[in-house]
Amino acid sequence: MTRDELRKLLTDVSEGNIDVGDAVLKLKSAPFKDLGYAKPDCHRGVRQGAAEVIYGEGKTAEQIIGISKSLADEQRILITRLDSAKAEEIRKSLPLEYYENGRIGVIGGMSEDKAGKIIIAAGGTSDIPVAEEAALTAEFYGNNVLRLYDVGVSGIHRLLAYSEDIMSANVIAAVAGMEGALASVIGGLADCPVIAVPTSVGYGASFGGVAALLAMLNSCASGVSVVNIDNGFGAGYLASMINRAAEK
Amino acid sequence: MTRDELRKLLTDVSEGNIDVGDAVLKLKSAPFKDLGYAKPDCHRGVRQGAAEVIYGEGKTAEQIIGISKSLADEQRILITRLDSAKAEEIRKSLPLEYYENGRIGVIGGMSEDKAGKIIIAAGGTSDIPVAEEAALTAEFYGNNVLRLYDVGVSGIHRLLAYSEDIMSANVIAAVAGMEGALASVIGGLADCPVIAVPTSVGYGASFGGVAALLAMLNSCASGVSVVNIDNGFGAGYLASMINRAAEK
Amino acid sequence: MTRDELRKLLTDVSEGNIDVGDAVLKLKSAPFKDLGYAKPDCHRGVRQGAAEVIYGEGKTAEQIIGISKSLADEQRILITRLDSAKAEEIRKSLPLEYYENGRIGVIGGMSEDKAGKIIIAAGGTSDIPVAEEAALTAEFYGNNVLRLYDVGVSGIHRLLAYSEDIMSANVIAAVAGMEGALASVIGGLADCPVIAVPTSVGYGASFGGVAALLAMLNSCASGVSVVNIDNGFGAGYLASMINRAAEK
Amino acid sequence: MTRDELRKLLTDVSEGNIDVGDAVLKLKSAPFKDLGYAKPDCHRGVRQGAAEVIYGEGKTAEQIIGISKSLADEQRILITRLDSAKAEEIRKSLPLEYYENGRIGVIGGMSEDKAGKIIIAAGGTSDIPVAEEAALTAEFYGNNVLRLYDVGVSGIHRLLAYSEDIMSANVIAAVAGMEGALASVIGGLADCPVIAVPTSVGYGASFGGVAALLAMLNSCASGVSVVNIDNGFGAGYLASMINRAAEK
Amino acid sequence: MTRDELRKLLTDVSEGNIDVGDAVLKLKSAPFKDLGYAKPDCHRGVRQGAAEVIYGEGKTAEQIIGISKSLADEQRILITRLDSAKAEEIRKSLPLEYYENGRIGVIGGMSEDKAGKIIIAAGGTSDIPVAEEAALTAEFYGNNVLRLYDVGVSGIHRLLAYSEDIMSANVIAAVAGMEGALASVIGGLADCPVIAVPTSVGYGASFGGVAALLAMLNSCASGVSVVNIDNGFGAGYLASMINRAAEK
Amino acid sequence: MTRDELRKLLTDVSEGNIDVGDAVLKLKSAPFKDLGYAKPDCHRGVRQGAAEVIYGEGKTAEQIIGISKSLADEQRILITRLDSAKAEEIRKSLPLEYYENGRIGVIGGMSEDKAGKIIIAAGGTSDIPVAEEAALTAEFYGNNVLRLYDVGVSGIHRLLAYSEDIMSANVIAAVAGMEGALASVIGGLADCPVIAVPTSVGYGASFGGVAALLAMLNSCASGVSVVNIDNGFGAGYLASMINRAAEK
Amino acid sequence: MTRDELRKLLTDVSEGNIDVGDAVLKLKSAPFKDLGYAKPDCHRGVRQGAAEVIYGEGKTAEQIIGISKSLADEQRILITRLDSAKAEEIRKSLPLEYYENGRIGVIGGMSEDKAGKIIIAAGGTSDIPVAEEAALTAEFYGNNVLRLYDVGVSGIHRLLAYSEDIMSANVIAAVAGMEGALASVIGGLADCPVIAVPTSVGYGASFGGVAALLAMLNSCASGVSVVNIDNGFGAGYLASMINRAAEK
Amino acid sequence: MTRDELRKLLTDVSEGNIDVGDAVLKLKSAPFKDLGYAKPDCHRGVRQGAAEVIYGEGKTAEQIIGISKSLADEQRILITRLDSAKAEEIRKSLPLEYYENGRIGVIGGMSEDKAGKIIIAAGGTSDIPVAEEAALTAEFYGNNVLRLYDVGVSGIHRLLAYSEDIMSANVIAAVAGMEGALASVIGGLADCPVIAVPTSVGYGASFGGVAALLAMLNSCASGVSVVNIDNGFGAGYLASMINRAAEK
Repeated sequence: MTRDELRKLLTDVSEGNIDVGDAVLKLKSAPFKDLGYAKPDCHRGVRQGAAEVIYGEGKTAEQIIGISKSLADEQRILITRLDSAKAEEIRKSLPLEYYENGRIGVIGGMSEDKAGKIIIAAGGTSDIPVAEEAALTAEFYGNNVLRLYDVGVSGIHRLLAYSEDIMSANVIAAVAGMEGALASVIGGLADCPVIAVPTSVGYGASFGGVAALLAMLNSCASGVSVVNIDNGFGAGYLASMINRAAEK
Repeated sequence: MTRDELRKLLTDVSEGNIDVGDAVLKLKSAPFKDLGYAKPDCHRGVRQGAAEVIYGEGKTAEQIIGISKSLADEQRILITRLDSAKAEEIRKSLPLEYYENGRIGVIGGMSEDKAGKIIIAAGGTSDIPVAEEAALTAEFYGNNVLRLYDVGVSGIHRLLAYSEDIMSANVIAAVAGMEGALASVIGGLADCPVIAVPTSVGYGASFGGVAALLAMLNSCASGVSVVNIDNGFGAGYLASMINRAAEK
Repeated sequence: MTRDELRKLLTDVSEGNIDVGDAVLKLKSAPFKDLGYAKPDCHRGVRQGAAEVIYGEGKTAEQIIGISKSLADEQRILITRLDSAKAEEIRKSLPLEYYENGRIGVIGGMSEDKAGKIIIAAGGTSDIPVAEEAALTAEFYGNNVLRLYDVGVSGIHRLLAYSEDIMSANVIAAVAGMEGALASVIGGLADCPVIAVPTSVGYGASFGGVAALLAMLNSCASGVSVVNIDNGFGAGYLASMINRAAEK
Repeated sequence: MTRDELRKLLTDVSEGNIDVGDAVLKLKSAPFKDLGYAKPDCHRGVRQGAAEVIYGEGKTAEQIIGISKSLADEQRILITRLDSAKAEEIRKSLPLEYYENGRIGVIGGMSEDKAGKIIIAAGGTSDIPVAEEAALTAEFYGNNVLRLYDVGVSGIHRLLAYSEDIMSANVIAAVAGMEGALASVIGGLADCPVIAVPTSVGYGASFGGVAALLAMLNSCASGVSVVNIDNGFGAGYLASMINRAAEK
Repeated sequence: MTRDELRKLLTDVSEGNIDVGDAVLKLKSAPFKDLGYAKPDCHRGVRQGAAEVIYGEGKTAEQIIGISKSLADEQRILITRLDSAKAEEIRKSLPLEYYENGRIGVIGGMSEDKAGKIIIAAGGTSDIPVAEEAALTAEFYGNNVLRLYDVGVSGIHRLLAYSEDIMSANVIAAVAGMEGALASVIGGLADCPVIAVPTSVGYGASFGGVAALLAMLNSCASGVSVVNIDNGFGAGYLASMINRAAEK
Repeated sequence: MTRDELRKLLTDVSEGNIDVGDAVLKLKSAPFKDLGYAKPDCHRGVRQGAAEVIYGEGKTAEQIIGISKSLADEQRILITRLDSAKAEEIRKSLPLEYYENGRIGVIGGMSEDKAGKIIIAAGGTSDIPVAEEAALTAEFYGNNVLRLYDVGVSGIHRLLAYSEDIMSANVIAAVAGMEGALASVIGGLADCPVIAVPTSVGYGASFGGVAALLAMLNSCASGVSVVNIDNGFGAGYLASMINRAAEK
Repeated sequence: MTRDELRKLLTDVSEGNIDVGDAVLKLKSAPFKDLGYAKPDCHRGVRQGAAEVIYGEGKTAEQIIGISKSLADEQRILITRLDSAKAEEIRKSLPLEYYENGRIGVIGGMSEDKAGKIIIAAGGTSDIPVAEEAALTAEFYGNNVLRLYDVGVSGIHRLLAYSEDIMSANVIAAVAGMEGALASVIGGLADCPVIAVPTSVGYGASFGGVAALLAMLNSCASGVSVVNIDNGFGAGYLASMINRAAEK
Repeated sequence: MTRDELRKLLTDVSEGNIDVGDAVLKLKSAPFKDLGYAKPDCHRGVRQGAAEVIYGEGKTAEQIIGISKSLADEQRILITRLDSAKAEEIRKSLPLEYYENGRIGVIGGMSEDKAGKIIIAAGGTSDIPVAEEAALTAEFYGNNVLRLYDVGVSGIHRLLAYSEDIMSANVIAAVAGMEGALASVIGGLADCPVIAVPTSVGYGASFGGVAALLAMLNSCASGVSVVNIDNGFGAGYLASMINRAAEK
């Protein structure tokens, strides 16, 4: 149920076109009718625009197909955290494009739009899966994405070689594990918002991404904010929000 | 040294107008000449535009005055984490406006600009100092700010009463301690980026803001990112970046 | 040994019907005779009424059958944390009903009683196994249970659609992982006790349920208390206690 | 605004007695008109019945007086975390009863009601302030309270001496710091819900109450749930909810 | 090299029977000659008496056989953390007795001695492997051991039934996971040293034994000390030390 | 109430000398009559022998005097965590000996007994207050104590100079902050039980004693157990238990 | 691109031999041309001298072969964290020496150089894989390495037997899990820098190496610094840096 | 007792110039005779050369004077963590030079030596006290020190301006709080060992230096090791060891 439909319903109540009991009934049933036994998962906040998101982890291929079918007529669908085995099974029932690097599946095609400029920067090659989740999400929502991978701070010249790109972006996602210093260095170079994405890459005292997370939260550069460890989707979605607002 | 000056310097090198040794010398000395014994603190990343930020905590009134005088001719100055005793002392030497609620001092006046729409929402009255730090920072940088205070999730109707404001903002900072649920609920209502600011308000298992921080990092709403505990300035500055980009 | 039997024994001592040595002997041996090599597990505190609980995790099918047989004549039995493989094996020896969603097995049948009103609310589909453990436990003990699943706070309208149910319950269990905000929002809407159940659902900085646990402990809503991460049984059992007391 | 008033308002909308715009206006302004610059603090969820709660910590005496005056005509008021200096100052303006042991202030008098039976048990003498906060809260809401203090598990006979009281209560709050074992032992003896309250009493590896908190969350006794460290009010309020429901 | 041999060597140096260089050489080589490529593991501190300990975890069957053969002529050997597969393989080469419950292997036979009285108490059936490691270790070193299993505090009467045993022991090991309250309750009943052994049994906020560990460290009973999580051997060895000293 | 009195009471019940109701009454009131408004603190487990312990922290001088007077006729009293200001005030009413180094007060005199041999070893001079608490406690209970202070492992020769003392003790308490390695090194040298006492001495990543605590729990030496951070009393009391048992 | 090449490029810019655009182009492309789809991993900081490091974990054999081939003409290659299965596969394409104990692969041969003296000391046999990673890394870079394994502090005499070696080294790596005391004891004996390497060896409260890490950070011996848990490579590389500087 | 004296003593034993008993006696008493009631504190490992270190924190001015007088004839003394009040008091008895910035006192004068090149780099002005502790310590031991303060990574150009200094140092200490990224960036630029010093500067999720500590331990640059939070002395002392070895 869109917000416009909701607004109409309330006006109908006030104008006596529909009585309170019926309105309540409608309100209760509306959002659930199209999904059946399951409702779209936690990424579902993404209601605006003609696109729906399914969080693939912990769902069977069957469940994903069921949810997708109930939605697929009206909108494009993004499926995150999708492994290749499930992807193959879904492809038997639905026209799925699968991007293995970012564990992303798409039904209804990527957006043709390529608005503005988002940079997805990754510290090391091991951070690429999370970075790709962010990059593909941003592309799905119609953004122009520039990937800068393997630009960790221990070889600062590689990052500096891209200074002009960094200074011309609308928003940057800095994806890094280990010591997570990438976000601070980019934050010091850029004029735009920087979304820091800690990854669980590392060993020993990296504690599954906690070291990077803390470093990013404590960044002394202004304009840096942080999403959850390995949350590439969240970074890509937020980057899209900011980039598209800047291009309006 | 602005980016344009930097670009010019490098072109001069390439055109032989200046030799490498001199360029290096200039590069080294330039950013430090105006400050003397101290350099602007960690919020200083904020170089763009005609404004400078001084992080007041751990600096004496004398140090703040010294830094301010070296800067004050050219630009407006924002001083964060400034207690009232220091503020009073600074006022003897410089025309300081002091905002006690947010522990913010301003030299050179607030911006006259009131662009776009930023909402600063706070869960409880104890979160107001952090929220005010964010709100005043955003106003200092020329943004239109709407304050929604005391709208914590345990009385959800108070928040819902502002649904339309929430839906029309360019960016929202959700400031909350204790369980930090405010960010998720607002994230579910809003179409724009939400900057979550955990505060150290609470007791027992709030662990000085850690409970709120973790809740916010795990928000199941899309479009939410997080800054450090009690980092009102960071939220206000980032909100300004996003809001002003959206209004361009 | 029931409390009535205990009281009788003590009176017998005082009246000289039994001497101290014999009483001590009886006291020592009584509670162990019926179980053999093992004694009912940690959920066994549930002695009142004609029902016994076996914590299935870490026990072999054989051990569960052994314990059950020593008990099954006198009372109904609830087996928690029971996987389907063990369930199948037990069914060969005993008339077990198995509820896979909540990993619950029942011998002697569910209660016919459907007293009062307990709501089990779950934030997302991944929280359902824990929610079902709570719901089935409550039903086993003779309570009327209403399930509200997939009502996470990032889409607050779905929860509000059930406001009247929430306001008419005797007790509510709020089951949620990730940021755990569900408990606070429900706590703000309800007039009855709310039992918060953090789940280990999430990734990154959810730390296996710690983020949700802390959020729930810090809930600013009154009337909220918390059980261990993933402890659906504990919530269902406590909800039954409260609901049945309210219906007496 | 009471729930009955709310229901009436919605019906008025549906019957055309009031139009949507006006209703929204009313909804927005109503809950705030009586409080002025501040709104009642986080314990304020306690709206039902004729009583209001003010969380005293971090508020000045003036603020507490201001809030109290706006409320005092209609309802009794409970003020928690109130130190004696502020209490004395408030007493100059308002008829405050002050209970120093539990840092509780009451305006409008304790309840005359003494329903049912709540036990507040405390492990050591240092836990008494938290236990008193719970006990006085419960008495304020009209419950019969039995205090069992200094019954820690290292001298188990003292606790067992009260077995009959424990077995006849409607609900028990077990208040303990250090190793927090009191909740498990009482949980094993009682037939009713046990609310465990960890306190910050202890040193070294008690980590300000974390050791007790974890122990209580892991209690192997059924029917035990936990509130935040030192949250006496929360335990007393929840105990009142359960006790009064049982007595209805 | 025994301490007597060491003393002799030093006297020889002083008497000129051996020169400094030779002494140093001897000192360096002596302790390693009998073991070959490996030296006995970390439990090896147990040099006194005719017994050696091998920590089996992380060693192959071949390594254990190699070490054992170099030692077995002179002394009995205790092998801890030994799984059944390795045990079977070792038995092909050496006369090993294997105790599966406690994952303990013995070469050269248990001690015939049964001195004094050690109680090994365990909270639940899941704690038995750790308890057995402690009990078998104590028996290996010639102590009389009484096992009290499944005496967790949620059914306090079962523990109290053994009050006299508890009061007559020389030393008690209290083995418990979850909330670890067993150590405090036993500590309050006993007159002798209590060695608390937290186990990793539990789920959720038990954090692999941390909850029990903290509870035990904070025990308000006097005479309680703690060993590492799941360290049954350590408890058994220390109990033997104390018991045998008391019986001397 | 002593155990002999308890045994007598139960026999009286069985012989009809006293009826059940009276016995219960006696059981309930007996342990509380001699203390008035307060009961002896958490160290009170120490009931055996003619000595009582009062935990001084968080008690006023008045409270300590009150408790002491109710006890002082019958037994000697040990007061721990007593600062010098309170000590002075108590001395006005009672014949208190005060030992400032260990913050210990004694009423009724130290024991004349000097049984066996306890070593209290401390790593650095900052650990001395905790070490003294242990040493004085042990002396109060009639043990012969040898103090080895400032024998930290960074200068291992100082510790080795005392090898013979270490090898002849009945029990050793190893008191150390920072890295807590002292316990392992002593544990490797000694044949007797070693009680490790982590202290809160240190800075940075010592986390108030946690680093030392963890090191001690993980000691690879056998025969080492651990008490709470800064718990000198606990170590001294336990050492006394072990030493006196060995000397019996 | 070497630093000399970089210096030349900048001089060329200044002398007009190359224009700014071309220089920028060169700067951007140069470091990447030889590697193709991937760039050398995080150990790659090691650019000086004719050697390159590949971090093997998380890379496929194919990727390692690809990177190696692009480098192997010019320099020797060290591959860390390489398991035997991948090693075998790489050996089909490239002349790899494989050292299983330290999970190290080498292409182009070990260094013939054996400069100075590095000691690698390990506490227990389980620490050997990490110690070997350090030792082999140091040998690869041309250092003379002395291995002292199984010299844990619980048998201090074994370590002391090597006092002279310890006193004559240029640098020592102390590798230890569990309580990590080895670093402090060696630090107290040695005159040279000690690099402490915590390992994840241990169980229970060792928390995967955290206990050892904290102990080492808190070492009271001077001259001790710490690398990440299990970071044998880091210790070996740093030891090489220090040893070779001392031998210059 | 110096090592030469020790060697002599052992030779005397071997040559019969001194008998074993006397040697033992000498060994025991020697290191303690010169200090009286106290022995030099934990930094005392620094025995080599003619200098002694006293850790000032937690010692009274009197104690420091006492220790200093017993040493001052023979050697220069470095006193760390010395506040200005104590410094003033000491100056009345001894010729103390006091350096307030680094809280360092020196008796016997700074070294005249200025060997090699050590860089002490600090991220922000708040890190200067720790950096000065390191710098002054290094100067005390006769090293040439270059200070680079306020070169945090959020303004990377300031650090790069010193690239040549960084590349020519023998050893660098990188002192930083907050996100601690400075160590990684310097580690990537330098060819020499980098000692990372986390500081407790920061707020919120910096957790008193833990965020910086973790970031530094996880540095992806080679050649970086870490000392305890705020341990400027440790870094300065270790830097001196490395620098002086390189200059030999």
